[in-house]
Amino acid sequence: MYQVSVPRFANILRNLSAILDKAQAHAEARKIDPAVLTNFRLYPDMLPMKRQVQIACDSAKGAVARLAGVEPPKHDDVEENFAELKARIAKTLEFIQTFKPAQIDGSEEKDIHLKLGQREIAFKGMQYLLGHALPNFYFHVTTAYDILRHNGVELGKRDYLANP
Amino acid sequence: MYQVSVPRFANILRNLSAILDKAQAHAEARKIDPAVLTNFRLYPDMLPMKRQVQIACDSAKGAVARLAGVEPPKHDDVEENFAELKARIAKTLEFIQTFKPAQIDGSEEKDIHLKLGQREIAFKGMQYLLGHALPNFYFHVTTAYDILRHNGVELGKRDYLANP
Repeated sequence: MYQVSVPRFANILRNLSAILDKAQAHAEARKIDPAVLTNFRLYPDMLPMKRQVQIACDSAKGAVARLAGVEPPKHDDVEENFAELKARIAKTLEFIQTFKPAQIDGSEEKDIHLKLGQREIAFKGMQYLLGHALPNFYFHVTTAYDILRHNGVELGKRDYLANP
Repeated sequence: MYQVSVPRFANILRNLSAILDKAQAHAEARKIDPAVLTNFRLYPDMLPMKRQVQIACDSAKGAVARLAGVEPPKHDDVEENFAELKARIAKTLEFIQTFKPAQIDGSEEKDIHLKLGQREIAFKGMQYLLGHALPNFYFHVTTAYDILRHNGVELGKRDYLANP
């Protein structure tokens, strides 16, 4: 359970941070207001890029905390620019990397209760990690990537996968 | 290793098939040529929607086959419309669901060699599944979703995650 969670979240969060560096460099080179990219949406009722990053971070933080049975720290969604989004990723990385394998391993059958809007969903630990937390995490990281790619930032699959 | 692969790929592939149903209904209701959606790209040098589906299928098929140590069947990339893409998903599902847990479990340390373009990468089984196959699979499913969402198809996160 540890191997499937902490090192995987950490690797992709580091890659996402490097992707934001490329987006920032792209904006600077073309004199694009960074807020245009951080607030960009692929459709009017989709979430903007900055929210994709924030939710990816919370998905990783919440998953690791819930599996370990601790309360995750609350990170307010206040980031507007690339430096702030990178700092959000950095503090998420710092938090999840405090966990030791012994705190997460063995949580396959742990009861996890999740509030999603009005719905309350009951999961077992492994079902939660594999069926909710990981696909949700990858969804938001990929959507952040897709938004930046759609805006011309030069990214490739290797920026997303990097060195697993 | 089985739990982390086959049921996860299968669940999301079924969800992707249902997402394509919604896209087809959207196209029919608005008299949009389905080829506009299946060929849509978020950026000129990104792959079109149909290729996102094909690669997601191949990512699942290749991962399960490699972990089990069998040669994956070759599926040619000939699909153009929603019915054909759904059939591609259906034959991928049929293939991966032939595998029993005993064929996949215990492959954590198995040597996996992957050719990515010009590069040849050596993985161990778990590193390959967690660090390459799963994030790559989710990347292409999410990008297919993002392309359809960008084109106004009414989708939500529940269409992607469904019932894990």
